[in-house]
Amino acid sequence: MPKLWNETIETHRREVRHAILATTATLVAERGLLNVTMSQIAEQTGIGRATLYKYFADVEAILHVWHAEQIAHHLAYLTEVRGQAAGPAQRLKAVLEAFAAISHGSHGHFDTDLVALLHRDEQVGHAQQQIRHMIRDLLAEAAAAGEVRADVAPAELAAYCVHALAAAGTLPSKAAVRRLVLVTLAGLRPTT
Amino acid sequence: MPKLWNETIETHRREVRHAILATTATLVAERGLLNVTMSQIAEQTGIGRATLYKYFADVEAILHVWHAEQIAHHLAYLTEVRGQAAGPAQRLKAVLEAFAAISHGSHGHFDTDLVALLHRDEQVGHAQQQIRHMIRDLLAEAAAAGEVRADVAPAELAAYCVHALAAAGTLPSKAAVRRLVLVTLAGLRPTT
Repeated sequence: MPKLWNETIETHRREVRHAILATTATLVAERGLLNVTMSQIAEQTGIGRATLYKYFADVEAILHVWHAEQIAHHLAYLTEVRGQAAGPAQRLKAVLEAFAAISHGSHGHFDTDLVALLHRDEQVGHAQQQIRHMIRDLLAEAAAAGEVRADVAPAELAAYCVHALAAAGTLPSKAAVRRLVLVTLAGLRPTT
Repeated sequence: MPKLWNETIETHRREVRHAILATTATLVAERGLLNVTMSQIAEQTGIGRATLYKYFADVEAILHVWHAEQIAHHLAYLTEVRGQAAGPAQRLKAVLEAFAAISHGSHGHFDTDLVALLHRDEQVGHAQQQIRHMIRDLLAEAAAAGEVRADVAPAELAAYCVHALAAAGTLPSKAAVRRLVLVTLAGLRPTT
């Protein structure tokens, strides 16, 4: 077979896979994890059930891949945001704002069954740890520059930041999320 | 039957019920929710299976009652702590410290299945809301006294506090929890 044909097949496979992931995420958000079947996913994606099973074994497998891609995407976004800011304090603020925006956007969509399922995923735990480590390192850098309190270890401050900013998922507006970031940053100020 | 006899029966029932709840909580913490059976609970409590079923229909029912009692107990404890401190700032600090201590003590015991199960419980949601309202009211009182920032609504600050202090569940020591409370309180200071 010519190379072009193989590439076309590969592109097609990627597109189908992407469509399955997106459809499943939407269906689960609408109906809850326990109410979504492989047949519904196939129908909504516009493919046959047999084709769907060539890509994924069950609904859980689809969701694990979808969630892993989400977290990887968040991590890439935070890394990009970090790279664009100049100076330790600005970098920290930009990354915490981005993290809060992610928390604000990704909560409330899913039911508790799904949260429990996804949190059992070790890969996800690893990616979340990378995000926490990024924040910890930014805190250490800002503390060394005298712009963040040095009386509490960066790892503890990172735990504080990640938990405090998770409140963004319960807040009704972007303005409220901005205030949350300001309050959280105020907790980090050097003690005088 | 004389009244005394009825009271003895009632006391005995309460004791058995309490023993069942305590045994189940311990077994679930040790083995995980999905690995605990009614037979094991009966055996460890030292009663027959038939007797156990007179008290509870299944493991989930036991855990719901156990968890509701825990939350009610936390709420009563926080109310007591609030009553003992003098002045808005002291009351707020005392209640946030107590809340952090509860978060520190009650996390890490349970697996994700159990957390998902319990969070589906509406009664628990109601009690958690009461705790959040208590913290919100303390924040409003302290803000009115000029001891907490007034540029962010007390309800938003309460969301911040509850989430930030939940980090206590991931911290290794009581000293780290104390530092977390100090950092969280620093976020609440009036802006100058």
